[in-house]
Amino acid sequence: MTDLKQMGERAVAAKYVLGALSTDKKNRALLTAADALKMRSREILAANEKDLEEGRAAGMHPGLLDRLALDEGRIKAMVEGLRQIAALPDPVGEVLETFTRPNGLVISKRRVPMGVIGIIYESRPNVTADAFGLCFKTGNAVILKGGRDALSSNAAIEAVLRDALEDCGITPDAIQLIKDTDRAVTTAFMRLNGYVDVLIPRGGAGLIRAVVENSTVPVIETGTGNCHIFVDEDADLTMAVNVIMNAKTQRIGVCNACESLVIHDKVREKLLPMLAAALREKNVEIRADERVREVIDGCVPATTKDYGTEYLDYILSVKTVDSVDEAIAHINRYNTGHSDAIITNSAEHAEQFLNGVDAACVYVNASTRFTDGFEFGFGAEIGISTQKLHARGPMGLKELTTYKYTVCGTGQVRS
Amino acid sequence: MTDLKQMGERAVAAKYVLGALSTDKKNRALLTAADALKMRSREILAANEKDLEEGRAAGMHPGLLDRLALDEGRIKAMVEGLRQIAALPDPVGEVLETFTRPNGLVISKRRVPMGVIGIIYESRPNVTADAFGLCFKTGNAVILKGGRDALSSNAAIEAVLRDALEDCGITPDAIQLIKDTDRAVTTAFMRLNGYVDVLIPRGGAGLIRAVVENSTVPVIETGTGNCHIFVDEDADLTMAVNVIMNAKTQRIGVCNACESLVIHDKVREKLLPMLAAALREKNVEIRADERVREVIDGCVPATTKDYGTEYLDYILSVKTVDSVDEAIAHINRYNTGHSDAIITNSAEHAEQFLNGVDAACVYVNASTRFTDGFEFGFGAEIGISTQKLHARGPMGLKELTTYKYTVCGTGQVRS
Repeated sequence: MTDLKQMGERAVAAKYVLGALSTDKKNRALLTAADALKMRSREILAANEKDLEEGRAAGMHPGLLDRLALDEGRIKAMVEGLRQIAALPDPVGEVLETFTRPNGLVISKRRVPMGVIGIIYESRPNVTADAFGLCFKTGNAVILKGGRDALSSNAAIEAVLRDALEDCGITPDAIQLIKDTDRAVTTAFMRLNGYVDVLIPRGGAGLIRAVVENSTVPVIETGTGNCHIFVDEDADLTMAVNVIMNAKTQRIGVCNACESLVIHDKVREKLLPMLAAALREKNVEIRADERVREVIDGCVPATTKDYGTEYLDYILSVKTVDSVDEAIAHINRYNTGHSDAIITNSAEHAEQFLNGVDAACVYVNASTRFTDGFEFGFGAEIGISTQKLHARGPMGLKELTTYKYTVCGTGQVRS
Repeated sequence: MTDLKQMGERAVAAKYVLGALSTDKKNRALLTAADALKMRSREILAANEKDLEEGRAAGMHPGLLDRLALDEGRIKAMVEGLRQIAALPDPVGEVLETFTRPNGLVISKRRVPMGVIGIIYESRPNVTADAFGLCFKTGNAVILKGGRDALSSNAAIEAVLRDALEDCGITPDAIQLIKDTDRAVTTAFMRLNGYVDVLIPRGGAGLIRAVVENSTVPVIETGTGNCHIFVDEDADLTMAVNVIMNAKTQRIGVCNACESLVIHDKVREKLLPMLAAALREKNVEIRADERVREVIDGCVPATTKDYGTEYLDYILSVKTVDSVDEAIAHINRYNTGHSDAIITNSAEHAEQFLNGVDAACVYVNASTRFTDGFEFGFGAEIGISTQKLHARGPMGLKELTTYKYTVCGTGQVRS
């Protein structure tokens, strides 16, 4: 069985080195790592082929096989990802605040790395390079636990990245991959307090739940999105259809896709026929309450469970309400704190919605699909936080840092 | 058994109301609550007397009885605490950032309440009023679980605060006290995900550990402090003695007291005799390595365990090192991420120490006793975080808030 404490100790030793690296040195290492991934792509693809063969032999679902598969294009995307991270500003060392106390103490709040970040993810091997890049740029050591299906691919990528670091004279323990596929090791990883400062799960609802339930290390919960769009009585209905179609169908398997629609009773008769026609064209199943089914045909009756479900599929639940307040209450009851939108021309209702809805990102007249580190202009993304502690919504480089207070005096003592 | 889900639902209903209250209304309620505590002090003291009687009958340690005891002075301090919180600026609603994306989306980061805060604490009943005040000012609902020894006192304070809220036309569910003393209820409270947004334990190391190990709700770890002072080769030794004596003996039972001393070999012969004399006067036991014991008499040999112990007592461990780097490595190995200080006249060594030590607060030429929300000028304190997620060091009002992104568009969709 993997000696996690030993891995933890190596990560802790590495974090002190990484936290002190200059931006320039970190950027040069990221570019070296990018070049190495490109140069050694054949090796990575061969390892990936091994994973794919085993997956096919085990009868893996085609969707999962697709997530697992690497090709020259996907490796190029990893290479470009590291280069983009090198080009981003380094948040470490930023002085967030400085103040002088009446006793003369000068207190500064400095942005510093988290230390050791743990990441537990599923079958996409590109996460190995992406997560390393983001953690490394912010001066953190990372310990990765990928899906067992992608073990050979992940190990090949890890080997390339570690070699690149050594070539740059930097400790390769900046990245360590747990290669043990024993579940007990994963559970022990979630309890590596004293070594791991934060654990970020990246994957489906089941993985996230398992991490939240078993981890004693602080966790950032990410990525489950039961996102709502509310069409207000005073909405531009063409805009509403346009935004709903984008949020529901532009990409169905993502956390910022729309799963549930809430409509004001007053727009029911005008909105629903045009919306239903558009949804039908994309083969979206509608599960709706009675008032909706009075207006359009071919809907499945919605249950309470539907309102709480993140379908990640061509299905949309629809609920009718009589006021903005009722919409807000419904959304707060069923959402996952990810992204919810209102379509309205009323500034008052917009502000009411922005204040009332409890979610990381609340939209007025725009698609929920914009909840994304790149779309927000962060230049990178490690995930989308749906909890309230530390970070909320898209997490870029800054969200992988913490701060320390430095206090400088001239011998002050407390009286 | 207490129906925690029902309490959770009441807290969630309350959080939406509290998050929308004006600063003025919150302040008036805090002042009303302060007046009510003063007016009904006899009732609170009677309840406290009941707790004290039971404590005495059960042979409770005098130190614990003292923590539990209320008198007119301590009630006055609670009253003043609430008034001070009313006078502090309200952080809720502050716009932290606004930016416009190339597609015209206007994104703002707004400071909002956490929602529902859970607090688990030990025998001091004043925490009931203090924690309510801080959570209420920041628009949060709070669920409290105090020590069983203080149940009558806490219940009396809760009743007064709830009545005061009702008098102001505000939901009394802004504060709810769990009155069940069954351990299973406390454990269930730590797993009230979906209702409680963050759990803050306030108490000794045992309580903190139990919460970290059992909670599935996000936790902010607080308050264990194995704080170090390092006396560099280039230090003002009079200042060093002064700061060490303050940090070690001004108040021994607090988390920001100094527990361990690290000295550069070069100051050993000059520093130790004067320091030992001062410590002896205060009856501080010295547990030291061999090089220290060569210079001064009457020391107990230090073990590895000593270096990792938060004594909260008249005991100080002492370790000799040969460089700043060795001091930093020793401190990072044994500290609890709370507060560590260097005494030095070298700007270079000071900067090396500030960068290298991994702690919430790192000091140059000042006592670690300043790690405190009031001393930092925050005007209040809910605790001192020793974790890296969300908040580090003294936590005031701002640290009881999170943010949400508001995104305003004109029909933008993602392509």
